[in-house]
Amino acid sequence: MEPETGLDKRGGGAKAAEERPPVLVSAVLPAGGTGERMGGGTPKQFCAILGRPLISYTVRALESISWISHIVVVVSLDNVEIMRSIVKQYGHKRTVIVEGGTSRHRSIFNGLEIFVKNSPIQKPEVVIIHDAVRPFVEKDILFKVVMAAKEHGAAGAIRPLVSTVIASSADGCLDHSLDRAKYRASEMPQAFLFDIIHQAYRQCNDYDLDYGTECLHLALKYSKTTAKLIEGPSDLWKVTYKQDLYAAESLIKEAISQEVCVITDINENAVQVGFLLHETLKSHVKQVKSLSSTLCKDHNHLQNILLGQCYNFICINDTLSDFKETQQLVEMLENTNTSLLYSIVLISVHLHVLEGTLCSSEMLKLVELAKEVKKKNIFLYGLIVRYQQDDMKLQETTDSAAALIMALIRDRNPAFVGQLLVA
Amino acid sequence: MEPETGLDKRGGGAKAAEERPPVLVSAVLPAGGTGERMGGGTPKQFCAILGRPLISYTVRALESISWISHIVVVVSLDNVEIMRSIVKQYGHKRTVIVEGGTSRHRSIFNGLEIFVKNSPIQKPEVVIIHDAVRPFVEKDILFKVVMAAKEHGAAGAIRPLVSTVIASSADGCLDHSLDRAKYRASEMPQAFLFDIIHQAYRQCNDYDLDYGTECLHLALKYSKTTAKLIEGPSDLWKVTYKQDLYAAESLIKEAISQEVCVITDINENAVQVGFLLHETLKSHVKQVKSLSSTLCKDHNHLQNILLGQCYNFICINDTLSDFKETQQLVEMLENTNTSLLYSIVLISVHLHVLEGTLCSSEMLKLVELAKEVKKKNIFLYGLIVRYQQDDMKLQETTDSAAALIMALIRDRNPAFVGQLLVA
Repeated sequence: MEPETGLDKRGGGAKAAEERPPVLVSAVLPAGGTGERMGGGTPKQFCAILGRPLISYTVRALESISWISHIVVVVSLDNVEIMRSIVKQYGHKRTVIVEGGTSRHRSIFNGLEIFVKNSPIQKPEVVIIHDAVRPFVEKDILFKVVMAAKEHGAAGAIRPLVSTVIASSADGCLDHSLDRAKYRASEMPQAFLFDIIHQAYRQCNDYDLDYGTECLHLALKYSKTTAKLIEGPSDLWKVTYKQDLYAAESLIKEAISQEVCVITDINENAVQVGFLLHETLKSHVKQVKSLSSTLCKDHNHLQNILLGQCYNFICINDTLSDFKETQQLVEMLENTNTSLLYSIVLISVHLHVLEGTLCSSEMLKLVELAKEVKKKNIFLYGLIVRYQQDDMKLQETTDSAAALIMALIRDRNPAFVGQLLVA
Repeated sequence: MEPETGLDKRGGGAKAAEERPPVLVSAVLPAGGTGERMGGGTPKQFCAILGRPLISYTVRALESISWISHIVVVVSLDNVEIMRSIVKQYGHKRTVIVEGGTSRHRSIFNGLEIFVKNSPIQKPEVVIIHDAVRPFVEKDILFKVVMAAKEHGAAGAIRPLVSTVIASSADGCLDHSLDRAKYRASEMPQAFLFDIIHQAYRQCNDYDLDYGTECLHLALKYSKTTAKLIEGPSDLWKVTYKQDLYAAESLIKEAISQEVCVITDINENAVQVGFLLHETLKSHVKQVKSLSSTLCKDHNHLQNILLGQCYNFICINDTLSDFKETQQLVEMLENTNTSLLYSIVLISVHLHVLEGTLCSSEMLKLVELAKEVKKKNIFLYGLIVRYQQDDMKLQETTDSAAALIMALIRDRNPAFVGQLLVA
């Protein structure tokens, strides 16, 4: 039912008795990096994944946790306006944009200072520090680091080392290698009692601020606070190189492909195909919901499905000239803001009984509608299912339709919008 | 012209005066891992990327370098048969399959022993050790580590650390953090004078063999040889988690999408569309080749294009019922082995002059042919270009056709094979 990567899991509605830390928590998200490791160009936190900047995914992951009070995003002066427009475009709430410093530590320090400098934002008891380029952070690990910070003063996520770490001598030769079992990679998120990390930054020298990389180290050195280390999941990894962006895109696509809603015309053939598709799709995704067209007219009902984070719809119409179900759903989708964060895939299925010709004028209707709704981040594709009375043949066609549907949903390819495929 | 990731760059033919190390070189490829970090199931080196096991990409990267004499692949007993079938299916040459030990070091040791144990395979002066799960290794870094090994006795690729490395205390708290600037991640490939690393393994104690991870460390400890460290490119990274497989797939898709060959019917309209497509595609890929249908009949000419590692073909026919160019190319492709390593994308373009109906019987012809050639790893898609005399409108249609073509090439989606798209 829930996407594997936990993407937006928190928004998923019906979780009973949410665990909340018994303290005021806010987060600082340093995002001042210049992206030189990506080979120049756009800093990686602003690179688009499925059309949306990476940082928006990370902000969304934090803002969807109700017990995080404020999210302070620290960006370089150059990117303040860009960040403002991202917050506006994607409707992010509880964010505060702060101008960064010349290094990572200086940026985090700036972010912390906002809570104490005559700010209307209340100083939290525990502050989370996370990276803008780790979009897959989940509530579970955030809760753990916050609770550990409350107890120990500081806490951070760690991962096993993937490669052995070695020290090199001045002439570029091996000096020694570390025993991989004794060391860990320090990842994000981390959390601190606010005063502990804030005092540490206040006492820092310039060398620490300019060249340091590890907040846990500052807490130890300046506040004598030993951080608790907590093993995090592998998708906490930091998007650093071009291949990481590809990986992030694939994980997001996978996460939003897990649920499909099938909406069926009352026509008898359509109901039959709808039922078969429902059953067949069940083996491809975690959840298939089905709606009759009458239920679909209930706005609240649809809204609930969308809130349940279903981004994929299949409308089964009768013939090729019949767009009733599709048009009705398009209208309802346009009235929600669901397509704001993720593109919605809408597949308009049409039954085709007779062998013979397909009229291209009907296809033009699909193309026009698809062009129109693409502006609203709804990707509309057409699919003809050759309807046959023979049960065996119909199942075969349904299998082929399900394969095409899954490919369209997993790919979310804007180039194929308005195309009419045949199963 | 060459794929960015350097994938199969070495096979690319016309490199003048190839640099060759002045020593006999062979490689050992430990591939005995069980894939527990991928969450169980298939060990990652055997996971399929675009239908082919990851390890086959790595073997291919090594075998395409002419100065690597033998490639010793070390797999667990369970996987010896699987590995044999991979070597056979993908036509790998100069490979030797050896049974691994219970640890990485024991497996490498077994691989080295094959060169000395009454084996018909000549002992190399320099041996490369590489990982099966690093498929993007390039000739440049291999040459560098081999030359450095010849001079220093041992050499290995390194990368900057992405995360800070920390030591934890027994109770799971921070002990100390390392200065990131002073340490490096030790990656692969590495290279050694054969006798140095072989002697080191011979002297190793059981603890080293069972728990050690670093060959450079063994060379230092047992053969008093200090390895030269060489900065490698970012795509040397180790495929470890599910997201790494996604990233590898995207990099491979990108690499084989860089070249397109357009083959045009002699019909006047087809020639015009072919020319426009050629010009438009130039802004999407690194190289567009064009062939008239007469040249395409020259088997040697086509063979050269295929050897130049072009995996994408666009055949411009006249009308929808005209499959001449497409069929001719299919026949020639079937006679080569090009589609063995990478799927070939073949887009059958048909001009459509009149508004009105598209006959589905013609489409069935495409579906049948597509189904047939898919077995040979050739992905055939149809594309109707609505031909219009108006230059402006024709350019618009061409832009839309180019967008569809690029989406088909970049996606290489087997689910859409046989579909007829409309530009």
